[in-house]
Amino acid sequence: MAQPQKVVLAYSGGLDTSVIAKWLSVERGLEVVTFTADLGQGEEIEPARAKARAMGIPDKHIFIEDLREEFVRDFVFPMMRANARYEGDYLLGTSIARPLISKRLVEIAHETGADFIAHGATGKGNDQVRFELSAYALDPDIKVIAPWREWDLTSRTALIAWAEKHQIQVPKDKRGESPFSTDANLLHTSSEGKVLEDPWEETPDYVYSRTVNPEDAPDVPEYITIEFAKGDGVALNGDPMSPATLLAALNELGRKHGIGRLDLVENRFVGMKSRGMYETPGGEIYARAHRGIEQITLDRGAAHLKDELMPRYAELIYNGFWFSPEREMLQAAIDHSQDKVTGTVRLKLYKGLASVVGRKSPYSLYSEAHVTFEDDAGAYDQKDAEGFIKLNGLRLRLLARRNRDA
Amino acid sequence: MAQPQKVVLAYSGGLDTSVIAKWLSVERGLEVVTFTADLGQGEEIEPARAKARAMGIPDKHIFIEDLREEFVRDFVFPMMRANARYEGDYLLGTSIARPLISKRLVEIAHETGADFIAHGATGKGNDQVRFELSAYALDPDIKVIAPWREWDLTSRTALIAWAEKHQIQVPKDKRGESPFSTDANLLHTSSEGKVLEDPWEETPDYVYSRTVNPEDAPDVPEYITIEFAKGDGVALNGDPMSPATLLAALNELGRKHGIGRLDLVENRFVGMKSRGMYETPGGEIYARAHRGIEQITLDRGAAHLKDELMPRYAELIYNGFWFSPEREMLQAAIDHSQDKVTGTVRLKLYKGLASVVGRKSPYSLYSEAHVTFEDDAGAYDQKDAEGFIKLNGLRLRLLARRNRDA
Amino acid sequence: MAQPQKVVLAYSGGLDTSVIAKWLSVERGLEVVTFTADLGQGEEIEPARAKARAMGIPDKHIFIEDLREEFVRDFVFPMMRANARYEGDYLLGTSIARPLISKRLVEIAHETGADFIAHGATGKGNDQVRFELSAYALDPDIKVIAPWREWDLTSRTALIAWAEKHQIQVPKDKRGESPFSTDANLLHTSSEGKVLEDPWEETPDYVYSRTVNPEDAPDVPEYITIEFAKGDGVALNGDPMSPATLLAALNELGRKHGIGRLDLVENRFVGMKSRGMYETPGGEIYARAHRGIEQITLDRGAAHLKDELMPRYAELIYNGFWFSPEREMLQAAIDHSQDKVTGTVRLKLYKGLASVVGRKSPYSLYSEAHVTFEDDAGAYDQKDAEGFIKLNGLRLRLLARRNRDA
Amino acid sequence: MAQPQKVVLAYSGGLDTSVIAKWLSVERGLEVVTFTADLGQGEEIEPARAKARAMGIPDKHIFIEDLREEFVRDFVFPMMRANARYEGDYLLGTSIARPLISKRLVEIAHETGADFIAHGATGKGNDQVRFELSAYALDPDIKVIAPWREWDLTSRTALIAWAEKHQIQVPKDKRGESPFSTDANLLHTSSEGKVLEDPWEETPDYVYSRTVNPEDAPDVPEYITIEFAKGDGVALNGDPMSPATLLAALNELGRKHGIGRLDLVENRFVGMKSRGMYETPGGEIYARAHRGIEQITLDRGAAHLKDELMPRYAELIYNGFWFSPEREMLQAAIDHSQDKVTGTVRLKLYKGLASVVGRKSPYSLYSEAHVTFEDDAGAYDQKDAEGFIKLNGLRLRLLARRNRDA
Repeated sequence: MAQPQKVVLAYSGGLDTSVIAKWLSVERGLEVVTFTADLGQGEEIEPARAKARAMGIPDKHIFIEDLREEFVRDFVFPMMRANARYEGDYLLGTSIARPLISKRLVEIAHETGADFIAHGATGKGNDQVRFELSAYALDPDIKVIAPWREWDLTSRTALIAWAEKHQIQVPKDKRGESPFSTDANLLHTSSEGKVLEDPWEETPDYVYSRTVNPEDAPDVPEYITIEFAKGDGVALNGDPMSPATLLAALNELGRKHGIGRLDLVENRFVGMKSRGMYETPGGEIYARAHRGIEQITLDRGAAHLKDELMPRYAELIYNGFWFSPEREMLQAAIDHSQDKVTGTVRLKLYKGLASVVGRKSPYSLYSEAHVTFEDDAGAYDQKDAEGFIKLNGLRLRLLARRNRDA
Repeated sequence: MAQPQKVVLAYSGGLDTSVIAKWLSVERGLEVVTFTADLGQGEEIEPARAKARAMGIPDKHIFIEDLREEFVRDFVFPMMRANARYEGDYLLGTSIARPLISKRLVEIAHETGADFIAHGATGKGNDQVRFELSAYALDPDIKVIAPWREWDLTSRTALIAWAEKHQIQVPKDKRGESPFSTDANLLHTSSEGKVLEDPWEETPDYVYSRTVNPEDAPDVPEYITIEFAKGDGVALNGDPMSPATLLAALNELGRKHGIGRLDLVENRFVGMKSRGMYETPGGEIYARAHRGIEQITLDRGAAHLKDELMPRYAELIYNGFWFSPEREMLQAAIDHSQDKVTGTVRLKLYKGLASVVGRKSPYSLYSEAHVTFEDDAGAYDQKDAEGFIKLNGLRLRLLARRNRDA
Repeated sequence: MAQPQKVVLAYSGGLDTSVIAKWLSVERGLEVVTFTADLGQGEEIEPARAKARAMGIPDKHIFIEDLREEFVRDFVFPMMRANARYEGDYLLGTSIARPLISKRLVEIAHETGADFIAHGATGKGNDQVRFELSAYALDPDIKVIAPWREWDLTSRTALIAWAEKHQIQVPKDKRGESPFSTDANLLHTSSEGKVLEDPWEETPDYVYSRTVNPEDAPDVPEYITIEFAKGDGVALNGDPMSPATLLAALNELGRKHGIGRLDLVENRFVGMKSRGMYETPGGEIYARAHRGIEQITLDRGAAHLKDELMPRYAELIYNGFWFSPEREMLQAAIDHSQDKVTGTVRLKLYKGLASVVGRKSPYSLYSEAHVTFEDDAGAYDQKDAEGFIKLNGLRLRLLARRNRDA
Repeated sequence: MAQPQKVVLAYSGGLDTSVIAKWLSVERGLEVVTFTADLGQGEEIEPARAKARAMGIPDKHIFIEDLREEFVRDFVFPMMRANARYEGDYLLGTSIARPLISKRLVEIAHETGADFIAHGATGKGNDQVRFELSAYALDPDIKVIAPWREWDLTSRTALIAWAEKHQIQVPKDKRGESPFSTDANLLHTSSEGKVLEDPWEETPDYVYSRTVNPEDAPDVPEYITIEFAKGDGVALNGDPMSPATLLAALNELGRKHGIGRLDLVENRFVGMKSRGMYETPGGEIYARAHRGIEQITLDRGAAHLKDELMPRYAELIYNGFWFSPEREMLQAAIDHSQDKVTGTVRLKLYKGLASVVGRKSPYSLYSEAHVTFEDDAGAYDQKDAEGFIKLNGLRLRLLARRNRDA
């Protein structure tokens, strides 16, 4: 008798992916390998082991990993070097986690000899695209199963009935409909759906889980410093920290001061608009600090080119093209610019605001000697400005003359 | 005897431009025409009339005009349609006022038969470029005098001595050095120089003049609505308002809630970095509201193209190229996108934050039917996503196969 | 009994679309409306009428139209204003015809009360995308049938058998496999497939149908002039011509001189590479002439912005997004630039080359007075260049100093 | 007595730079160091040594170097990787040589302890900008002397009189006015000025020096192959060649077949339009071949990003910003894409045409299996196209519905 084929499932340990695990086994006849990652979502991942065992999955097929450092070091920080924000605001917290999960799914598939990977994303969202494009880019022959696009368990009732029929424990709080859907990792928590679906209605305060309401934040501002080396954060208030440790510490600060809440209607890659609520407490602080250090260490040519490339770069990540040649090309350009992005930024945190109030660097390009209103001792000859303006204006004058005379 | 040639001077009524007026007459032998505009800088402009008369300028050569509506309608609002921010943050408050001033200088030169215009900008800054490029683009034969690039009155002491020698009244508060330099109009107040020159030092609170410190702002949030029609703001809290009236009303709200403070190190067109402090209370609220209404009324293709064009557009305005073919081309593209940018945005103002919390429009592209987690009655077929992903991924798979096999 | 639903088919009169017409009737139970357009493909379109009648389609459901002028005026010329070339070379001859066909399909559907449209493009190519995206953009409720993606008549043998079974006449030359596949209209002829599938093999000469081999072209060059008004061609050698007449005349010239052959491996929107051979005789001449007239009438700012926007614009047309907000935005920008693109270009045609050798315009921005090596009578002050260079170089010097000292 | 300060002069050995050498010594009291480079301009450079000696310059201050390999390897080839063409056509032959000359000028200044460099470019052209920006970027303290912007020897007569007065030999053919001005190196020869100043007049045949007239080229086409490795040419017709050797060999082929002539009106950085004639025989062949090999080895994402970045990249080189952070960032992106740009291109050369007729690569991304009209054995599922189109069209349909209903 032939061995059943294997599938590696991105497994959270929750009800939905437990049903998927069973369904892949029962309906598709596959041997299920589970992969559960700690990306800083704030939940214990060890319980997933017991749940997987309870479904009869052998220990060698249960993969549980702490990927927090890799996540921040190799995904979040490189993205932050670009000052990436999708559609002007969104810090891409969900988008940037998907490629890492897919990378491990594919690697575990190779380790375990699996032909398939599976995920629990729906057919309406961006995540399915991100998971699958990443997987295809890493293994062109991998096969992907997306049960939400295939099965008929699309209503809560049907799903729970199927779970119970197949001896999957249904926690009490999962019996009813959740009032919204969330995703979380070390960078952010997103919420969408149900109570958030009317974009005219303000997001109810109970939706927020990672930040205090700014109105409840301390009445006294807090000042912090972040140190950067070659474009990446390396210390908080003078204490050296690993990438994930730094981001976690900033999350605590952001939470306390109500920083990083965002209510957005965004354009999904699959063609519809959706309304989401994001909390990116540490990420918002970090992003502002990174721009702050760039202000004094990046040349204008580099800075403006980065600003022009950014929307495309952010779109690529949002759409799931992290593992694409064009994202890598843009990354090469961005990384090239970061060699001297080293120094310290001082921020003021207060009731939702993270404001850069000071920046210094051994590589500062800011020259008081040039900019000063005082005597500049010959650093700058104001007469040069006349020629500069004359030649910048020459084409405009020729144009004006043409338009007048013609 | 030949008639003296005329020069139209951008005249604020302050000490510096008064000295310039006299200098143009005494040292250059020109007949001086003064132009003083109310752009919402918050100072009376009528006193400039008396000061000009006191220097012997005849009434027919004293031009005093209220340009507030034209400024907001034809300059600020078109720029806001683009969501323009220079270097990620700066709302271009000074940059956008210069072309209008130059336009009137050139028009008055034509009316009065003047060959020259003059301004009081220094040779180190961006404003000289903006004034002069605008002027050259509007009249290729206009001649520009920029006394700060020419004369030797570069120290405060020399300037005051010259003023006194020529019977120009020197107000007491102008005798000493000002601790910083400001520019103001209906959109913003900027401050730079002196006490702000060290980018590591926090801006002292006394520098701010247009906003309360967020810490002193009301402890209770305030909700407002802004209505847009075809991309421009037309009403506040349901009250229809002209452009300048709306911006002024938003300024009051922003002032009260401490909104729109920005501490920035920016790259000047003339090649150096400078540190500036900006207050754009109403502009910050307006800019966020405009993005809010675009979220539900702009198609993704239009929105993303706008985001990609924006940095260039902002750079053009910053550098003084408002009256250039390329700015006009970008404006044509941007304006084309705004036809259905109509609707209402609700914002929460609280201690420095202006957060979009709701948006609605008769032209909304947001479709609950498509995005819902609930049954969508066939609006969207999740199976389409598979083909979508497959073909988006095809090139990545061919690439992965090539890289693996080669 | 219910009325059968109607479908409007893009009908060439050839075997394939005749089979589709019958198949839509027999297999899908639809009432077929045929639409045959003369886009300058060089074949008579009237025979399509007899063939449609022979299949029992009533005259009121047979639409035969000459769209050549609309095609060139509203599609080809606007695209040429952008100097659009896909992937550096391809003049988009097929891509630009599809939106017009879809536009008429949808309009005829509305006139005849049809719910469906149908086309004969395969599931591997770009044309299906172009037809369908155009249709969806013009009527969100239109339903599209693409038989090549659905049926099992995918082999030549099966198709012919089905045709004969259903009394469709199969011309002798269609019994065997064609050695390649072509598409033609007034702008170009494309060929692909079969003998062209190996990109290392030179295209056999018998594939070309619109141009003589350059080796067989006249040994004596021919000089022509093209006149432009506001960015569009209006006359050839001084004779005013309509858009389609002008393009047809240029086609004859290009054919004679072997101009506009292109052998390309291109990237399809659906994710694969394909090798195509294009002949665009008149289009190549026109495209070079348009750049020629822009050289003296467009300001640098406008010209460079156009060059930067062009690849995106060309990609949108190639991918089928003619009727998209972002293409229209780019068109608005491009059209804004063409107001003074008026004048005359002289070209030399010789054995495959179309070289601009002269250009003149009443709106020329070229100023001999400025550029001359001779005495320029003060038009340009060479000393201005020093300040221009100094300030352009300032940031580079600050950077070099930083990098050296740090 | 103080030592005189030194200046390193870019010295061709011709009349103009000989006058400059003497002028720097006589009028500015500087000790002159000459630098003469062989960049493949096609003239002997050794005679410059005798001429420098004749002016009394000691041997240790006469630098004569063959830079051809460095020029092609480190400047021309990297630029060709980008497919750079300025304003759609110009292969940047002059622009790309200037940074290398400046680099050596600055290095020699450091070796010899010179504070100054000098060049013979005029104040109207781009070359002064290129020389000086490059120099400032490499040494922020270098001082530049541009005699043509300073002296009064601006007429031919004055220059010759000065030369004779200072015992500089004036060759007979330099006594009169040259009918045009040229610049040459291994990549191209440019001509401009005088007889070329009217852009309506065809360039006289005697202006061309590097190519035969296509009408005089062989009547029989010649086929060649060029091999690329990682984006750079490495062999011609199977013979491995160094960069400069390859370009020189292509120049011979291009000369023979009349390839690479270009008549252009271009926009100078200093604000005016100029008309130039370029001959780039080998460069034109090479540029087409490079695009040919990219067609099968570059992914679409990489290829399209390159096309979008190219105009900016070309503009930077044209304007003199080779040694700028933004050019280096773009180069990093471009170079990242070239890793698999390896393979062979076959071209047909005939009377001015260099046509790619075949390309092959061990890293080809072209998949006959996918693109074929024949049975593709399941490589591609045509049904995927439906979902792909549906979701690409979703936003357009929502937009059409909104526009119809609103």
